[in-house]
Amino acid sequence: MQFVKNKIQNPKVKVRGITLSSLAAGIRYKDRHDICLIKIEGPSKSIVRFTSNRFPAAPIIVSKKHLNKKEPKYLLINAGNANAATGQKGIKDVINICGEISKLTGCEKEDVVMFSTGVIGELLPTNKIISCLPKLIETNIQSGWSEAAKAIMTTDTFPKMSVREFELGGQKYSLAGICKGSGMIQPKMATMLAFVATDLPLSKKALEVISESALSDSFNKITVDGETSTNDSFVLISTNTENTSLLDIDDPSFSLVKSLISECCQDLALNIVEDGEGASKLVNVRVNGADSYNEAKMIASSIANSLLVKTAIFAEDPNWGRIFSAVGASGAENIKQDNIDIFIGDTKICHRGRAVEDFDELEVIATMRLHKFNILIELNIGSCFAETWTCDLSYDYIKINAEYRS
Amino acid sequence: MQFVKNKIQNPKVKVRGITLSSLAAGIRYKDRHDICLIKIEGPSKSIVRFTSNRFPAAPIIVSKKHLNKKEPKYLLINAGNANAATGQKGIKDVINICGEISKLTGCEKEDVVMFSTGVIGELLPTNKIISCLPKLIETNIQSGWSEAAKAIMTTDTFPKMSVREFELGGQKYSLAGICKGSGMIQPKMATMLAFVATDLPLSKKALEVISESALSDSFNKITVDGETSTNDSFVLISTNTENTSLLDIDDPSFSLVKSLISECCQDLALNIVEDGEGASKLVNVRVNGADSYNEAKMIASSIANSLLVKTAIFAEDPNWGRIFSAVGASGAENIKQDNIDIFIGDTKICHRGRAVEDFDELEVIATMRLHKFNILIELNIGSCFAETWTCDLSYDYIKINAEYRS
Repeated sequence: MQFVKNKIQNPKVKVRGITLSSLAAGIRYKDRHDICLIKIEGPSKSIVRFTSNRFPAAPIIVSKKHLNKKEPKYLLINAGNANAATGQKGIKDVINICGEISKLTGCEKEDVVMFSTGVIGELLPTNKIISCLPKLIETNIQSGWSEAAKAIMTTDTFPKMSVREFELGGQKYSLAGICKGSGMIQPKMATMLAFVATDLPLSKKALEVISESALSDSFNKITVDGETSTNDSFVLISTNTENTSLLDIDDPSFSLVKSLISECCQDLALNIVEDGEGASKLVNVRVNGADSYNEAKMIASSIANSLLVKTAIFAEDPNWGRIFSAVGASGAENIKQDNIDIFIGDTKICHRGRAVEDFDELEVIATMRLHKFNILIELNIGSCFAETWTCDLSYDYIKINAEYRS
Repeated sequence: MQFVKNKIQNPKVKVRGITLSSLAAGIRYKDRHDICLIKIEGPSKSIVRFTSNRFPAAPIIVSKKHLNKKEPKYLLINAGNANAATGQKGIKDVINICGEISKLTGCEKEDVVMFSTGVIGELLPTNKIISCLPKLIETNIQSGWSEAAKAIMTTDTFPKMSVREFELGGQKYSLAGICKGSGMIQPKMATMLAFVATDLPLSKKALEVISESALSDSFNKITVDGETSTNDSFVLISTNTENTSLLDIDDPSFSLVKSLISECCQDLALNIVEDGEGASKLVNVRVNGADSYNEAKMIASSIANSLLVKTAIFAEDPNWGRIFSAVGASGAENIKQDNIDIFIGDTKICHRGRAVEDFDELEVIATMRLHKFNILIELNIGSCFAETWTCDLSYDYIKINAEYRS
């Protein structure tokens, strides 16, 4: 696993068939871009996944209907206001905005999808957004990815972008992804907002398979605070699909492409945890030797969301008893305390359910002082495993969330 | 609902048939009592409930076996060391200690049960404990409840005790309860440690029914940090059972007695939340109008454990969008966002899924400045309800848990 923090390999990347523009609409923030339009030109196929929160935001409710009818052509994203818990008025606002884009561009209103992030429960300043649309539509450029990554930020401290440029069959292709997210992070279907596009023409089936695999290896594997937001959305776009030979799942190159896109999503997801509100550590919790994948996942998630484990990580305190207790409290049933081994970094600190005598505490503390490290639990029951990425819980998490209204 | 903070109505209460003693064994703390012995004299019946954590501590493993054979006569409780994650050695230590009490008192070793609380993963200082036993056994007194409440504390900032004195059929009875708990609190079966005794002679069936009802109305209704500990234990004792007319569930006074004991447990449970690590607020989250009790409970628990809700409570910020999102993310399925009403105190701030226009924000902030207040969610779907008591998440929670090894 390679970590990429804000590693914008090519900030001016271009994905053929995609143009982007961003602007300051003054929705909540001053002196920064907070609205972004992604335009998809030419034939394309997209996969869009939304939050499992039962109270999806208004833009998700409307976008789902549009996506049932058409492949999207315009993605409008605003930061600063989630347009969640806004009732029928919130839905009308999205419909009006989509209608306005349809009028200005000549597309169908179902060609437009909208994504919002920010404060819940306040009405969208529709007029501010509508008055920006002409300029947004006019100024879109192919190299607008890094500006777009900045425009969709809320409490994020850095823009999140991952780029791959690759060749296949002698032809050059690009893959670009951006996302935002820092708090309210435990996506159960996708992340806060993530947009990934490639100009490699992929079949719909290939996109579906890749997106499931990429999601479970990235955004569905992270937690900052165990909160699943009303607005989580993930978009994977393949442009250039007028090409008659779409890459499908039986293509010899399929698994390479799947890996590339998964890697890009992992970069973005790890960026989110690294930028977790108040976070100073990035910790991979791995559970091995489980009876089933589900139990491994439950245990990894229980540890990764434990406030006591997260404060111990913040304190750089090898307090493995809290990890042990979180395993027992996870809800997993096929576990035995006398079988458990726990490692922090390379050091085994719990063997068969009790402390390793004379383990090198200084070595463990040295590991925990690192910005990134691993916690490994060996259940010694079966052969299934799961991973979750988490961060510490610090004074700054409280500060950010006691001061910011999200 | 009446709140009782450390309201020791009669700190010198006596429950006939119960004597207590406490001492400083130097297990972890200096200059304070950290070990306590509760002796039950004469015929008695007890109900003991333990944690649902799949990795129960050594004293629980041993005590369960003893309780299968005998009604307990000696309850030994130590603070400062949980004797959890200590493997077979931890179990042997408990067996030795129980054996020592058996030798010193002439009881069977199965008459002894042990309870531990404190750091996980360290071996119990058995010799320190054994050397205290003669004096512990010798000095027990009927009025030792409030000293015992102090001896079982760990990160607790005040001792927790609740007392009722009542008359039934012209006869005077006492009810006394003590407990400890502050962090690692989301009991799923019982609380950290709670001991409740009455000299009203109750049948075993009556005790069972009362303990289920009292637990679900008290300790199973609270959360500080969503953590279910390895050591949670609840004991309900009825002494004086040589009396041939034990009060049973068909007795006209049964529901009065059940209420009294429930109230006592509620006092204790609320004390725990009030003393939640770093907590400055005590908040009752009530969910009405659910399709089932389970869904109501899931939603109340999701809100009560949401870090974002808890930091908003700390900030006295009426950020109801976070409550709304926590309802949607709860896992409950029979909910509709357009039906939701949310109240903070008496003020409705969300009506049918969106903000109440012109609600009195100052009034809500005034409510949230109180030490205790209510959050009410009306789902408007069915007729089931549930409550959970929670506290805020403050800088001090981080401070306590980044500094204390539990």
